[in-house]
Amino acid sequence: MRVIDFCMVGILLLLSGWTSSALAVAVGHNALAKQAAFYFDPLPDKAPSIDLIDNFEEKVILGQRLFFDPRLSLSQTVSCHSCHNLATGGADGLSVSVGHGGQTGARNSPTVFNSVLQIAQFWDGRARDLVEQVGGPIVSSIEMASTDPLVCAVLSSMPEYVAEFGAAFPQRKKPICFSTTKLALAAYVSTLLTPDSPFDRYLQGDEHALNEDQQAGLQQFIALGCVQCHTSVNVGGNSYYRFGAAHEPEPRYRPAEDVGRSAVMDMVTQAYVFKVPTLRNVELTAPYFHAGGAWTLSEAIKVMGWTQLDKKLSAKQCKHLEVFLHSLTGKLPQLQVPKLPAATERTPRPQ
Amino acid sequence: MRVIDFCMVGILLLLSGWTSSALAVAVGHNALAKQAAFYFDPLPDKAPSIDLIDNFEEKVILGQRLFFDPRLSLSQTVSCHSCHNLATGGADGLSVSVGHGGQTGARNSPTVFNSVLQIAQFWDGRARDLVEQVGGPIVSSIEMASTDPLVCAVLSSMPEYVAEFGAAFPQRKKPICFSTTKLALAAYVSTLLTPDSPFDRYLQGDEHALNEDQQAGLQQFIALGCVQCHTSVNVGGNSYYRFGAAHEPEPRYRPAEDVGRSAVMDMVTQAYVFKVPTLRNVELTAPYFHAGGAWTLSEAIKVMGWTQLDKKLSAKQCKHLEVFLHSLTGKLPQLQVPKLPAATERTPRPQ
Repeated sequence: MRVIDFCMVGILLLLSGWTSSALAVAVGHNALAKQAAFYFDPLPDKAPSIDLIDNFEEKVILGQRLFFDPRLSLSQTVSCHSCHNLATGGADGLSVSVGHGGQTGARNSPTVFNSVLQIAQFWDGRARDLVEQVGGPIVSSIEMASTDPLVCAVLSSMPEYVAEFGAAFPQRKKPICFSTTKLALAAYVSTLLTPDSPFDRYLQGDEHALNEDQQAGLQQFIALGCVQCHTSVNVGGNSYYRFGAAHEPEPRYRPAEDVGRSAVMDMVTQAYVFKVPTLRNVELTAPYFHAGGAWTLSEAIKVMGWTQLDKKLSAKQCKHLEVFLHSLTGKLPQLQVPKLPAATERTPRPQ
Repeated sequence: MRVIDFCMVGILLLLSGWTSSALAVAVGHNALAKQAAFYFDPLPDKAPSIDLIDNFEEKVILGQRLFFDPRLSLSQTVSCHSCHNLATGGADGLSVSVGHGGQTGARNSPTVFNSVLQIAQFWDGRARDLVEQVGGPIVSSIEMASTDPLVCAVLSSMPEYVAEFGAAFPQRKKPICFSTTKLALAAYVSTLLTPDSPFDRYLQGDEHALNEDQQAGLQQFIALGCVQCHTSVNVGGNSYYRFGAAHEPEPRYRPAEDVGRSAVMDMVTQAYVFKVPTLRNVELTAPYFHAGGAWTLSEAIKVMGWTQLDKKLSAKQCKHLEVFLHSLTGKLPQLQVPKLPAATERTPRPQ
């Protein structure tokens, strides 16, 4: 289902006077499955359109090496994998990540899993796609602190990388550059999908894939209105909303100084608007929210109920929602640790 | 070949008046292969005696997770894999590693690959075996900065770990403790062998596995006396020698304050004595020496020639030795990124 469809549905629901409570009546398996199919799509095995990319396999193999290579950072201690640890849900388990020289940023590391299916990248959506996104942390002074020429010097110093860039970008006169580095990284990240979660199997017709509590949670998720933001294939990641739509969140959840999309769009109306995060694999990626202020799912659920939906959720509602969210944990792809090329005499040293 | 055998051979060579130059005459394939077989053994596919360990497979699976889990550190940002990066030869490519809060130690991170086959662990051999070694960095205040109780609290908070420790240590009343954590980690690390290098294939009878330059390098390696320390299955790792046996190394190679084994054994005669490092996969693990002071293999070779063997090696000798060392790069095992258990409400938070 595309965003536009959902918006139209939302408008129709409002016009027809339906409220979320009208949806809260107990529904049978079939009715619930139908509702779910209306709001969500199962995760695909691979991202759309990647078949159109030339030498995609070569780009992925190269991109995987780059993703794990700390030599893309100035100190040669920080790789993409440092903060997007594939062993811990594609994030790092910290409120905010630790980058160059121990510096910390203001935002929680979002998962890389299924990120290709989002409407845009970063919490404020300032990067249109993965290709635009992956370069950001590499040159950010508080993250990997490298530069375009330094990245090229590092990669050009290793014959194995020279050969792999050549294979991945055979049309280019100079296969190694910052732009091709980003393309290869984006190609790899686009393969990091986690299909076949219990929820996906439920959407595909297996009504036993969710247990009773999880089905109750799904029903609440729809009825309470969580689905207004967390919808579509990524159960989020496809729209922007104000954090604090109903009530102002506490500062530990929404620090005053991080104004979200208003800094990107230069529009006051966008203050505290953030991209709705995906909820896929959410049980693996605590702490939650853009500043990593909520350490448990139950805390995050309660906060969302109040700040976004104007509802004080009961313990039972929270529990049902939480067990439903556990059903969004998919199957991780086979993740190999790559063998990185050996440094040479020409490889710039860590600083 | 065991250490004791080598020592006896060394004594016999000395008694018979042989010098390294006597070995330096050009030898044919067969003669060189025979010499090599005398000094070295091919890497095995698995470590000896592991079949005797109960529930070894379960311990390895658990140990692999622990190896990658940053939650074993106080800040939850440092895992074993941070400094023993399996993508970069089992080390970290830095002179000295960066640990808790950005602190650095005094020694270069040694590779974990093939470490089980060493005579002892750490540069100064202060840990008898891997089980004794793996606990050290976890509780070192400048490395992972955790404690025995904190490690147990973290692991006990995650039901998946509870189940895995139970499966790996079914005889234990309390399967999760620091001791079992070390046993599981050691079991995993003991599987990190890199057999089937060109040199191994040469030792196994394939005379074409080394090219001419590499064979010339091997011949030099034996004739010059490198083999006096770098011998046996790990081409090192099975004895202790003074760094500076012939000439004092420059301070950047041997900082005055790190006295090596004399700190461990409380014996002045052990000053600047260190465990001889393995040379397996050495091309992947720059920088070199215990303080990481030499950034390239050619530099390290030159320094070794002078400080250990009292020889100013020619450019040609260095080149031959270097290409021979490249033949020690083995096949890495299939290295999966594990899926780590999700934190729970009871999991202690990073500090």
